[in-house]
Amino acid sequence: MADHHLSAEHIHTVWDNSLPPALTIRPGDTVTLDTLDASDGGVARRVATGDLTPPAALAGVIAASLRSPRPGPRGHPLTGPVCVEGAQPGDALVVELLSVEPAAWGWTGCRPDGIGLLDAALGAEGLTAYTHFWDLRAGTHTDFLPGIRVPLAPFPGVIGVAPGAPGPHPTPPPRHVGGNMDIRQLVAGATLSLPVEVPGALLSVGDLHAAQGDGELSGTGIEMDGRITVRVTVEKRAGLTTPEFTTPTHGGSSRQWHVTTGHDPDLMTAARTALRALLRRLEARGLSLEQAYVLASACVDLKISQIVDAPNYTVSAFLPLDIFEES
Amino acid sequence: MADHHLSAEHIHTVWDNSLPPALTIRPGDTVTLDTLDASDGGVARRVATGDLTPPAALAGVIAASLRSPRPGPRGHPLTGPVCVEGAQPGDALVVELLSVEPAAWGWTGCRPDGIGLLDAALGAEGLTAYTHFWDLRAGTHTDFLPGIRVPLAPFPGVIGVAPGAPGPHPTPPPRHVGGNMDIRQLVAGATLSLPVEVPGALLSVGDLHAAQGDGELSGTGIEMDGRITVRVTVEKRAGLTTPEFTTPTHGGSSRQWHVTTGHDPDLMTAARTALRALLRRLEARGLSLEQAYVLASACVDLKISQIVDAPNYTVSAFLPLDIFEES
Repeated sequence: MADHHLSAEHIHTVWDNSLPPALTIRPGDTVTLDTLDASDGGVARRVATGDLTPPAALAGVIAASLRSPRPGPRGHPLTGPVCVEGAQPGDALVVELLSVEPAAWGWTGCRPDGIGLLDAALGAEGLTAYTHFWDLRAGTHTDFLPGIRVPLAPFPGVIGVAPGAPGPHPTPPPRHVGGNMDIRQLVAGATLSLPVEVPGALLSVGDLHAAQGDGELSGTGIEMDGRITVRVTVEKRAGLTTPEFTTPTHGGSSRQWHVTTGHDPDLMTAARTALRALLRRLEARGLSLEQAYVLASACVDLKISQIVDAPNYTVSAFLPLDIFEES
Repeated sequence: MADHHLSAEHIHTVWDNSLPPALTIRPGDTVTLDTLDASDGGVARRVATGDLTPPAALAGVIAASLRSPRPGPRGHPLTGPVCVEGAQPGDALVVELLSVEPAAWGWTGCRPDGIGLLDAALGAEGLTAYTHFWDLRAGTHTDFLPGIRVPLAPFPGVIGVAPGAPGPHPTPPPRHVGGNMDIRQLVAGATLSLPVEVPGALLSVGDLHAAQGDGELSGTGIEMDGRITVRVTVEKRAGLTTPEFTTPTHGGSSRQWHVTTGHDPDLMTAARTALRALLRRLEARGLSLEQAYVLASACVDLKISQIVDAPNYTVSAFLPLDIFEES
């Protein structure tokens, strides 16, 4: 098993299964990927030009992170794609998140013009554009204002594999092959399974967040550059139809959760997609459909993982694995 | 401060501000309310007639809970209404949940015909009607099947005050004055604030659940008779527009949460209602709208509390109070 490293020089900004792999690995290998923030350095450049003014204590670290702008189509800057030998359509790519490291600083913004759950069309009530800068150097928490401290729980906002459909596909909406899911429980310790649609899977990662609530209400988490290390394996003929994962992060009533996801313009439909995938997991344990449904009603939690990545919004269904004796 | 008790003889099955109070109390008093299950004893009667067959170990406790059917319009059987002296339109009724006691048994059902997130119209994929019986006598957990154990966390599925609009109003949909919100974090230790619309508020409670996941996917939690004790106070001119509560129950990253709720046919609209109420709470702490929005994006969690109580579905926004130094 080899350990690989992919620098932030290997960036693409659309999903496209015709992109040449930046790296080819074997199942069981680990990869460390350096990632760029969702603005592709744009916020740092606006600081450099004086358009945005961060707190004085952050000016140095922001300037140090400044990179040259790149040409080309703009989407989330994604690091990859990583080709995984042997992965075939119908398999699942199993991505174990080993570590997610924050940068020294991050930002969260809001705008009145259509990103975020509140916008002008919907009555944003006087909202103006605003960018908050966060000092992430403590590593475990960040102070918002005096007396308000937010814990860090870094995760990749975008993680996915190439869609089978040809073409460039924009990065904002997540899809059944993953992408901009913005699921905050995909922290180190989680294991994500993605439906493979092209040979080699073509995994890409980007848009790391230092923290975010379920929903990503303003359209941005704590956006940052970062570094993520994953171990990648392949589950043959997994029959996966939507991203699923296990995670230690949700709440106190279980140590581990199995999570299914749905991504759709309609939150109700997204919830049904997640529920159907979850019921299949319970049926695979020997429960009837009715038993699975009733048990899910008693203990499965629906969360709105993101409500801002138009046109697809993400609902996740959390099954507490501690209900099973063997877990 | 007096302690009152209201038995399950004091039942109504619609919301209606013209109903005479079953009890009048003063702010600061406590009330213990005995409540009936959502089927109004219907499941127990179906067991008595042989239409449903519970496990042998539960036959006795189910028979012991059997009551005579009552005439009249059928909705959730609600215990109340409780008139609170001095509560006026524009105030908030503040309901501290002191204890919630499960019954000896409970049930969860599913049907293919329109209750629950999956139904025939939406492709229920062969779903048949099914009722599961739960033995709740352990008090802390219940075994679903060998090797599958669900922890109990009892709460009232329905808790609300009378709408200002003349009525009757059916009980299934929750409203801006509460009702069938099915919010599983309303456990003992939570404190719920409800917008008062009529003099005396007219609080009613019912439909206790021994446990439920966020969503109430099949349309039923662990349904049961029960007993709940609350302390009721009044916050004058609270300016509340939707139910809000604090709760110790959500997850590991905070000990207490402040939660705002939205109830609407559209989940997106319900989420916006909850978000707006939450931003007002943050603005009341001195944050600008933009600061509130950005902070919410970094740490507020959206949950789908229920996705089955047509025509209104409930989204709750959870603010972790541990981010504030004073908490």
